[in-house]
Amino acid sequence: MRSVKIFLDSRSYEISIGSAMDLGEVLLSSAMKKNVAVVVTNATVARLHLSKVLVALHKTFNRVEVVEIPDGEQFKTWDSLNQILTALLSWGCDRGTVLFALGGGVIGDVTGFAAATYMRGIPFVQLPTTLLAQVDSSVGGKTAINHPLGKNMIGAFYQPRAVVCDLQYMDTLPLRELQAGIAEVIKYGPIHDMVFFQWLEESIEAVLAKDEDALAHVVQRCCEIKAQVVSSDERESGQRAVLNFGHTFGHAIEAGMGYGVWLHGEGVAAGMVMAAELSKRLGLVDESFVRRLTRLIGRAGLPTKGPVIDAVDNAGRYLDLMRVDKKSEAGEIRFVLIDGPGKAIVRPAPDSLVREVIDACCK
Amino acid sequence: MRSVKIFLDSRSYEISIGSAMDLGEVLLSSAMKKNVAVVVTNATVARLHLSKVLVALHKTFNRVEVVEIPDGEQFKTWDSLNQILTALLSWGCDRGTVLFALGGGVIGDVTGFAAATYMRGIPFVQLPTTLLAQVDSSVGGKTAINHPLGKNMIGAFYQPRAVVCDLQYMDTLPLRELQAGIAEVIKYGPIHDMVFFQWLEESIEAVLAKDEDALAHVVQRCCEIKAQVVSSDERESGQRAVLNFGHTFGHAIEAGMGYGVWLHGEGVAAGMVMAAELSKRLGLVDESFVRRLTRLIGRAGLPTKGPVIDAVDNAGRYLDLMRVDKKSEAGEIRFVLIDGPGKAIVRPAPDSLVREVIDACCK
Repeated sequence: MRSVKIFLDSRSYEISIGSAMDLGEVLLSSAMKKNVAVVVTNATVARLHLSKVLVALHKTFNRVEVVEIPDGEQFKTWDSLNQILTALLSWGCDRGTVLFALGGGVIGDVTGFAAATYMRGIPFVQLPTTLLAQVDSSVGGKTAINHPLGKNMIGAFYQPRAVVCDLQYMDTLPLRELQAGIAEVIKYGPIHDMVFFQWLEESIEAVLAKDEDALAHVVQRCCEIKAQVVSSDERESGQRAVLNFGHTFGHAIEAGMGYGVWLHGEGVAAGMVMAAELSKRLGLVDESFVRRLTRLIGRAGLPTKGPVIDAVDNAGRYLDLMRVDKKSEAGEIRFVLIDGPGKAIVRPAPDSLVREVIDACCK
Repeated sequence: MRSVKIFLDSRSYEISIGSAMDLGEVLLSSAMKKNVAVVVTNATVARLHLSKVLVALHKTFNRVEVVEIPDGEQFKTWDSLNQILTALLSWGCDRGTVLFALGGGVIGDVTGFAAATYMRGIPFVQLPTTLLAQVDSSVGGKTAINHPLGKNMIGAFYQPRAVVCDLQYMDTLPLRELQAGIAEVIKYGPIHDMVFFQWLEESIEAVLAKDEDALAHVVQRCCEIKAQVVSSDERESGQRAVLNFGHTFGHAIEAGMGYGVWLHGEGVAAGMVMAAELSKRLGLVDESFVRRLTRLIGRAGLPTKGPVIDAVDNAGRYLDLMRVDKKSEAGEIRFVLIDGPGKAIVRPAPDSLVREVIDACCK
């Protein structure tokens, strides 16, 4: 078993990475009351993994309950959040109750926000079942729900007490979802670690084949890099924004196509190509870097072009959608750009140049 | 102008106490972007105080918007919260937007929770317009909305960037609301400071007459005491619970009568008498202390007896309601009791004794 320690003073916690781990044993070291556990999941994940989790939790907790929320990004809403909160209240759960998020990013985000807001905060544990959730939600404490006017617009920074990344969950993960997770994995190369990027170029087939050692290295390295970036900026005031490489364009793709049509990782994949192309046109990286990044994204089975989301004024629509992004300031879009391979910066760019990039990178 | 500094590392802030203060000047020292301000208030407060606040904010901010939510505890709901969040999104507000809570406890709680959750946290400033809000919401960072199954059940700990307690607002405050605020003021005597309690015994008429010096002393001293208690326990894991003296019974009264029938402070007033009586029956204080506390509560025009909320089994209904309180643990009610005047402790008590107290203290 590998582990990554996240140091955040009194809110420090450990990410455990392994295969078919004993949940009770893994949780031994985390200081929580082992009285009532409530597992939040959805029907898809429940069918595959719930029974094993329940057996483990029943050994450790006196009482274990389950809340099933509907499956899908479109249900990352107040209604799903309220379903969890109402269940907790109706069971008389107090501040010692431990919430378990068993699922992908949606389950993690909603459950984390429920934990952040139920009685102003109760402990929660992440059991991420997708590669995306293991590399992305394990570190950073971001929780949220969507609002009809914008994704992840309502949420909180709230840290889990423990994260258990069991690679067994990858066995049943559909290929498209694995690939979407790999988009966030690839991201860490250009923004921080080109040695890791090179390892990915050499190992992408092993990762796609769900080789356990390759997956373990991917999860561990991504969590380590993210932890390093986040530790200096827990509440996202500066440096942390580099983690959003590809996300400004990606969010526009997701919103423009309607949530769920493109997976988050697919939007990020095409978004990274667009952000790299923008970096190139600003003279920050050369053409060979853009081609190298594009090639790896393509080898991972991910889209390297953005979709046309408006037949009349595609670039204008992208720009409108990007201007409402959380990272914008006073209507100015702040792009995460690559300032030489392995280093990211955040800055605005002229609309005219962004339009050129969108025209060149969409089909 | 008086001020109380709240020390919380990077989240430290200042409470300014005075009359007819210049808002722009008071906010000079607090580090916030002075770009967009959004004032959350209700129609009652807006009619009395909004225009002055807007004049001051327009001098300081480039753009000022207003959200009016319905007036009353029954509107401390998801719907009101969502009204604020939707307005912020529709105006394209970013993370630099400053929320102003202009009103009493409901406005402060909902606005604070909106600030805590909008884009995972934006700055907010409290402009409390009731005595209760000035002495109670200024310190502690508690924000929340109600859930149909319980009061303040959904919320967050989130600190304001500044609190401006303008005593001018007291001029238009109805007497019943002033008195309700005094209940929380009296509370600080038994739990922490009997010198202040004695000052109140000598000055209660001046406070009720809205004497500005008396009010300023009240607000300053209460904020100081609360800050001292909270600083050691920001997230309410232990010592902070003593601030809930009178609240366990009080919440049961509020819930049992239907929110809004008894004001919060009225419930706390009768609740303090009940908690003092329980302390006496547990041998922690003597009869003379209970009488002294009851006398001051009565002189403030506050109820010294709880209401009968169930004609058949009044004590049973109180107990049921107290068991779902946030401070309960595994169904065990934890009472804040007075362990000698000026010192509070938190502990459970036998149901039979609690029943006796309820029977003796309700009419």
